[in-house]
Amino acid sequence: MSVVVQSIPRAPRAVIEGLARAGVATVHEAQGRKGCLHSTLRPIYAGAQIAGSAVTISAPPGDNWMLHVAIEQLQAGDILVLAPTSPCDNGYFGDLLATSAMARGCRGLVIEAGVRDVRDLTALGFPVWSRAISAQGTVKQTLGSVNVPIVCAGQAIAAGDVIVADDDGVVVVRLDEAEAVLAAANSRLAAEEAKRAKLATGVLGLDLYDMRPALAAKGLTYV
Amino acid sequence: MSVVVQSIPRAPRAVIEGLARAGVATVHEAQGRKGCLHSTLRPIYAGAQIAGSAVTISAPPGDNWMLHVAIEQLQAGDILVLAPTSPCDNGYFGDLLATSAMARGCRGLVIEAGVRDVRDLTALGFPVWSRAISAQGTVKQTLGSVNVPIVCAGQAIAAGDVIVADDDGVVVVRLDEAEAVLAAANSRLAAEEAKRAKLATGVLGLDLYDMRPALAAKGLTYV
Amino acid sequence: MSVVVQSIPRAPRAVIEGLARAGVATVHEAQGRKGCLHSTLRPIYAGAQIAGSAVTISAPPGDNWMLHVAIEQLQAGDILVLAPTSPCDNGYFGDLLATSAMARGCRGLVIEAGVRDVRDLTALGFPVWSRAISAQGTVKQTLGSVNVPIVCAGQAIAAGDVIVADDDGVVVVRLDEAEAVLAAANSRLAAEEAKRAKLATGVLGLDLYDMRPALAAKGLTYV
Amino acid sequence: MSVVVQSIPRAPRAVIEGLARAGVATVHEAQGRKGCLHSTLRPIYAGAQIAGSAVTISAPPGDNWMLHVAIEQLQAGDILVLAPTSPCDNGYFGDLLATSAMARGCRGLVIEAGVRDVRDLTALGFPVWSRAISAQGTVKQTLGSVNVPIVCAGQAIAAGDVIVADDDGVVVVRLDEAEAVLAAANSRLAAEEAKRAKLATGVLGLDLYDMRPALAAKGLTYV
Amino acid sequence: MSVVVQSIPRAPRAVIEGLARAGVATVHEAQGRKGCLHSTLRPIYAGAQIAGSAVTISAPPGDNWMLHVAIEQLQAGDILVLAPTSPCDNGYFGDLLATSAMARGCRGLVIEAGVRDVRDLTALGFPVWSRAISAQGTVKQTLGSVNVPIVCAGQAIAAGDVIVADDDGVVVVRLDEAEAVLAAANSRLAAEEAKRAKLATGVLGLDLYDMRPALAAKGLTYV
Amino acid sequence: MSVVVQSIPRAPRAVIEGLARAGVATVHEAQGRKGCLHSTLRPIYAGAQIAGSAVTISAPPGDNWMLHVAIEQLQAGDILVLAPTSPCDNGYFGDLLATSAMARGCRGLVIEAGVRDVRDLTALGFPVWSRAISAQGTVKQTLGSVNVPIVCAGQAIAAGDVIVADDDGVVVVRLDEAEAVLAAANSRLAAEEAKRAKLATGVLGLDLYDMRPALAAKGLTYV
Repeated sequence: MSVVVQSIPRAPRAVIEGLARAGVATVHEAQGRKGCLHSTLRPIYAGAQIAGSAVTISAPPGDNWMLHVAIEQLQAGDILVLAPTSPCDNGYFGDLLATSAMARGCRGLVIEAGVRDVRDLTALGFPVWSRAISAQGTVKQTLGSVNVPIVCAGQAIAAGDVIVADDDGVVVVRLDEAEAVLAAANSRLAAEEAKRAKLATGVLGLDLYDMRPALAAKGLTYV
Repeated sequence: MSVVVQSIPRAPRAVIEGLARAGVATVHEAQGRKGCLHSTLRPIYAGAQIAGSAVTISAPPGDNWMLHVAIEQLQAGDILVLAPTSPCDNGYFGDLLATSAMARGCRGLVIEAGVRDVRDLTALGFPVWSRAISAQGTVKQTLGSVNVPIVCAGQAIAAGDVIVADDDGVVVVRLDEAEAVLAAANSRLAAEEAKRAKLATGVLGLDLYDMRPALAAKGLTYV
Repeated sequence: MSVVVQSIPRAPRAVIEGLARAGVATVHEAQGRKGCLHSTLRPIYAGAQIAGSAVTISAPPGDNWMLHVAIEQLQAGDILVLAPTSPCDNGYFGDLLATSAMARGCRGLVIEAGVRDVRDLTALGFPVWSRAISAQGTVKQTLGSVNVPIVCAGQAIAAGDVIVADDDGVVVVRLDEAEAVLAAANSRLAAEEAKRAKLATGVLGLDLYDMRPALAAKGLTYV
Repeated sequence: MSVVVQSIPRAPRAVIEGLARAGVATVHEAQGRKGCLHSTLRPIYAGAQIAGSAVTISAPPGDNWMLHVAIEQLQAGDILVLAPTSPCDNGYFGDLLATSAMARGCRGLVIEAGVRDVRDLTALGFPVWSRAISAQGTVKQTLGSVNVPIVCAGQAIAAGDVIVADDDGVVVVRLDEAEAVLAAANSRLAAEEAKRAKLATGVLGLDLYDMRPALAAKGLTYV
Repeated sequence: MSVVVQSIPRAPRAVIEGLARAGVATVHEAQGRKGCLHSTLRPIYAGAQIAGSAVTISAPPGDNWMLHVAIEQLQAGDILVLAPTSPCDNGYFGDLLATSAMARGCRGLVIEAGVRDVRDLTALGFPVWSRAISAQGTVKQTLGSVNVPIVCAGQAIAAGDVIVADDDGVVVVRLDEAEAVLAAANSRLAAEEAKRAKLATGVLGLDLYDMRPALAAKGLTYV
Repeated sequence: MSVVVQSIPRAPRAVIEGLARAGVATVHEAQGRKGCLHSTLRPIYAGAQIAGSAVTISAPPGDNWMLHVAIEQLQAGDILVLAPTSPCDNGYFGDLLATSAMARGCRGLVIEAGVRDVRDLTALGFPVWSRAISAQGTVKQTLGSVNVPIVCAGQAIAAGDVIVADDDGVVVVRLDEAEAVLAAANSRLAAEEAKRAKLATGVLGLDLYDMRPALAAKGLTYV
């Protein structure tokens, strides 16, 4: 029942870098407004914007043993993604684990639980998106699994899916859709640039997007 | 049922500026400890302190169409105030809408829902007080209303009421009370200055406010 | 029923300073993973790391009278710890009270309720760990007690217990255990230093802590 | 600042009775899907379905003094509606107050706070919709107001507005809209009866409401 | 993007009936302590215990159009399972939809959102497990999908998976594991019967499960 | 660190029975409005009203091993009180443990976590006050302690303290105050009986408690 899947697929590096540049909101729109993890996951410090391949962890509440197991599975550019098997805010991860993960090239952690040593993690430049910041420690008594499909913060995530995270939160892109999503995101970014320029001059969205007829048809009344 | 009120009253500019300088806590005290929106509304970045006339928006859950409609109603110095018709954490507002609102002189957004592109908004210097930060997008399918009375984060707000917002949160001042509240706030600020100086020297509040007799009368016992 | 205990024991200054240096996560581990206050208590600004003797306050909801009473009981190096008698998010404490507390040498406030004037408090360098930031004011009508045992954010705290607080949250150390906990924390810090160096070179926690046999014995399967 | 408005308007008894019979969900739809109080307000026992004129109370957190004041203002058929001035779960109301309110003909209580003695209230047949059940008592130290406009559980409520409450929650109907809303609700009930009969025979809503063309036009695909 | 999958696999009727008899807690244990939906989903009335094949619905916040679409896909013995694409407590479902669903043989609804007309639903004997009870209505403006994989209350659910629900909540059993889980559940039930008889006579779990050596080995100390 | 205290003091049976009869709200008032556990603890079924001596359990999140240990320490008339060492909603307790506890004369369970098999527990007549109902199971891997001081739902509780629980929630009475609290509760009950009779005839609380002068002195204005 407790397994470690050692070989996982990963998206091409260029796709991952492109998704990182696009950012969470754009990627989420580009794939049809899906994939956002709950807004309860927040970054421990502002300004990080990353993407990477998910190394997934299913762990018992209050037990961080599987993090050590998962770190061995990391390749450069990966992101750890941990979901507890039932709700838990304990601090599963701190500066020692971050040091170890960084030595393997890990880009960050997404965890639907707690994290600690946040001052050290900030100093190290190791970004974390978590549900809580908590010094409450964990034990190493019960097994979980690594690189199995998980549900984290409301989204189904498979090992190797692309995780994008920034100040707006976290979004997951399915591995087999990553390339197409990147293309859509890049189109969207180009289109937004032109719109932004017009809106900055005072052109209204009502006119730019030609919304007035539809609003009138629905019955909007000006008084 | 879905209306846009195009003409709303506004407080004099000098009154609004004065309330901005006084800040949320002082204004709230000056009007008799009322008007604070729920503390679940938090600024997306620290340090902004603004006041302005409310342009109110009642919007369906997960639908930001009315924001485009409301932006046309903005005058320089206004603040957008959005309440969803039922609880929703979606990201209704991002950098394109902010660009458009800023082109109309808007000073900020208060929203009992979510916002996204917070790194861009921070870079733009467009302050937002929201219940959530979320990249989850919205649709443009269902009407709402603009400049109608709303309840936002526990407070009834009419179009043209003065909104004051800073790191402590958000307070609403009724338009017809704004001048009197400013006067009371200014008195309060002057009085606080003197108190602060005395407290800094080590004078106790117990003595400065002459609390000892009342405490004793209520039965406080020192052991 | 409403009492102020005027004489409380305190830990030696050197012990308190040592615990401050160790920080919350380490102290919590050093005393057997106990004593963490709920993670709902968060610092109003990042970077503060303090320890001090608890001056405890039990206060009614929405009433901050006892804070004035408690400030008289402060000695240099103390930390105010306030628990409302029922859940309340009001802003009990602001810049005037902070000015007064600082004049007595107070190092900070831990409060399972709200605080306001956070921009001023940040400028003053007076750290607060609170459940909420709220401008909503309080009254001075009902008594509470000072320096009695309280439960704050899930932990029993006696006057004179050592409070340690940093970006990870807040932990309480029982006065009679403070010295032993400091010794354990210092040992732990020394041991962590060596581990950190090894992990940074890429040694795995699996090997450093010799976890492989135990994992295998529990049935972990690599596929 | 603390006032008791002694004379309030009320809807005709027949209108109130009609709204009670229609129930919360129907009344809410009949007035354009507005007026529902937050779903956090729940009945203390199942099966009650009432309507009445709102006698509103604005009360400080943890202080139930104004309930005694409000009871004097009750007329037969009224409903007490209490909103605390800041969030509070204390038990403001119990069997003695219920006995007193029932002696004045009060039909129930809607309270965005706590209530206690729920076994007694159930035995008395006095329905309450509350945010919490809590034995935690309150004081009688600070004034509030009676029959002033309040915001309760997200809705603005004026004294004399009609409150409808049942197992689905609570809805407010503005006094000047009550008659029209009742007419719309009754039409709705009649129409629903016919629909229910058809649906029970297996007719699909897709056909009964002729939804298939609109779904196809939006792009719904069957695979 | 918006699809209705019309043909889904289902578990054999006897397996489903067996899982219904076993109940949520036993089924969850029998499959290795996995599959429980969040405990925030609660039944609208006590005493129902059902199992059935999941007809899944992904719906926008505040929009129940897809429920009508899904009802056409129901076969006798199915359970509707709805997850909104972002958090929403609106009342998506009431007595008319229940009448229609029952006409198709539907056994119940699991919804990570709100439901209304709960008195009628109770009278009809149509069980619902929901996150909220709310009269707040929804619109029919935006498409979703039916019988696609969803995440509901923290669990990934595919169309045709077996849903088991009772007073303890809801658990999902993967279709390809249903038969094996039933066998394990039945073994477990038989074993529990014998244990229950012994425990009722006063035999301690410490002895029945031979826990004393393991507790001693871990260091449990009796004082 | 993990201990089982085998000998604990208990209040006299008559005192415990008297407190059970008085109920939670009255006992809480009689001891000066203190001792209520958070209102998040709710009974799994309505109508139970019990009191008993606390057998306390401190348990890790997601681990119910210590419940088996605690059951051996039960005497007839005791109540199990469990606090997890960090927040957890797992179902720690079900019908087998209840069968075992009842065989030892246990009167009920108070648990700041989850419970399951609630239909069986209801049928058995074994009352539980819990924070959640959840089928999610637990492991038996990590030690905790029995009959040590704990904090449960915001209250410090020592082994042998008297727990009173009913539909209003749970209150703790310190062992050394139990007798005095019972006397105060009985006085209160007698006084309430007379008040109830007067209020039922329509006498107002304003007059019965002579509140009018104090209200006027505070400035209450009738308009």
